Amino acid sequence: MDIQHVCILGAGTLGTRIAFQSALSGFQVKVYDIHEKSFELSKKMIEKIAKSLVSSQIYTAEDIQLALNRLSYTLNDQEAVNQADIISESVTEDIEIKRKVWTRMGEIAPEKTIFTTNTSYLLPSSLASFTGRPEKFCAFHFHDVFYSRVVDIMPHPGTNMELIPILQDFGRRLNQVPVYVRKENHGYIFNAMLLSFLGAAGKLLVNQVATIEDIDLSWKVNFHVPMGPFAILDQIGLDTAWHVTHQLPDANSQAFAALLKTYIDTGKLGEKTGEGFYKYTSK
Amino acid sequence: MDIQHVCILGAGTLGTRIAFQSALSGFQVKVYDIHEKSFELSKKMIEKIAKSLVSSQIYTAEDIQLALNRLSYTLNDQEAVNQADIISESVTEDIEIKRKVWTRMGEIAPEKTIFTTNTSYLLPSSLASFTGRPEKFCAFHFHDVFYSRVVDIMPHPGTNMELIPILQDFGRRLNQVPVYVRKENHGYIFNAMLLSFLGAAGKLLVNQVATIEDIDLSWKVNFHVPMGPFAILDQIGLDTAWHVTHQLPDANSQAFAALLKTYIDTGKLGEKTGEGFYKYTSK
Repeated sequence: MDIQHVCILGAGTLGTRIAFQSALSGFQVKVYDIHEKSFELSKKMIEKIAKSLVSSQIYTAEDIQLALNRLSYTLNDQEAVNQADIISESVTEDIEIKRKVWTRMGEIAPEKTIFTTNTSYLLPSSLASFTGRPEKFCAFHFHDVFYSRVVDIMPHPGTNMELIPILQDFGRRLNQVPVYVRKENHGYIFNAMLLSFLGAAGKLLVNQVATIEDIDLSWKVNFHVPMGPFAILDQIGLDTAWHVTHQLPDANSQAFAALLKTYIDTGKLGEKTGEGFYKYTSK
Repeated sequence: MDIQHVCILGAGTLGTRIAFQSALSGFQVKVYDIHEKSFELSKKMIEKIAKSLVSSQIYTAEDIQLALNRLSYTLNDQEAVNQADIISESVTEDIEIKRKVWTRMGEIAPEKTIFTTNTSYLLPSSLASFTGRPEKFCAFHFHDVFYSRVVDIMPHPGTNMELIPILQDFGRRLNQVPVYVRKENHGYIFNAMLLSFLGAAGKLLVNQVATIEDIDLSWKVNFHVPMGPFAILDQIGLDTAWHVTHQLPDANSQAFAALLKTYIDTGKLGEKTGEGFYKYTSK
């Protein structure tokens, strides 16, 4: 199967990044959203990413212009999906919204279209039947597209296995490293490991074994990496971290979720608000 | 307190590295061991480290020579500890051996001497009383001294808190980043997080969620680091990994320990034997 037309559902942060990389990789891209104002935000995000890609000489200004020519926005879902060889869905992480969207796509998408979801927390089997064609449905999960370039390919038990090599190839053409998640797993591969690691850091903190700074230092200095667990949590957003942590039943996770809540309640959500475990000054 | 004389107990890998860094940092160093042949191995290790430090321009050949002039080996524990301001103990990781060594040190060391253990798995409180002077005793735990330059300072409840700033200063003079572990914790800070992260990787593997290669790729590509969890395990040694994992009670750890055992039983212990999860060719 030769993928040429890509439909992106949801013009948020990830939808925008996937759309832009798809256009940069030579695909024709249609981005659908229900809010017109999200298109303006999306365009601003693309402008910012483009600037950084050009300044780091990953793409030329001409590459960017050609990509932008291949990318369009629409409020009309029928138009968005009309020619689509593949759909990448990044709508709000809410099972009811996603089920509604996939029910609609099952009704209007051409027969050829491959259906993929970029969900971070849901399993594809919780959405597949709503598409009316579960064999065409697979999780295809990006991290941040430009810096963390892994794409997880995770089928549900009813996925047609012929999709896997097609998605692997498509992932590579999007400048990603595809990894194959053989069976459904919450958090795919990376997030499952990240969650354990961050949880261990949270446990050290709530048990007052060491300070935030010393826990981060231990990781950074030993592994020669720029960020420790609490700096990573600030980047993820403490609201997102709370959302995941407070659902875990063990006492350490609950204590860590309670600690995260004290930050959230005072508006400290991490980098995006200028303060979380650390303070950030805007450049 | 002005530390000038350092006594290293145990001329194994870590004892040797701590001894050499101490000498490089300007301290007078006596290395004690019960086996004369371990001194030959220790000297060879130092030669190899010295070569790499000179070639990476961290120290000059003259620095190395001066350091070697400050370092001596002895089979006589009395002589080793006679002038010692501080002892760093890296003898075999066996509680009975360590208790015997610390009982003896309590008998023969000068009153001024600070007692530190480099234990990875034991808590200092399990050794402190054997020294006869528990207030002088603290864990002072190195990672690999030259690449991973964190030193954990972990007192037991009876440690005199005046030791902490002395050890922090001594750690910095040894070119380490000291981190303070406020209360006894198995695995200090870094190893506690590492264990969680590696355990999560093991869980993904034994549950057949993904291959070794894809699990490693997910970590490496997303974090831009040279090694994923299974390459790290190969470096740690699968025997050591088994030793830690098989003591954990949960089903995933037990399954992962059983998998590690199949590697160990066929002589695949990781990098040191040329094969573990991956194959290694010697340079």
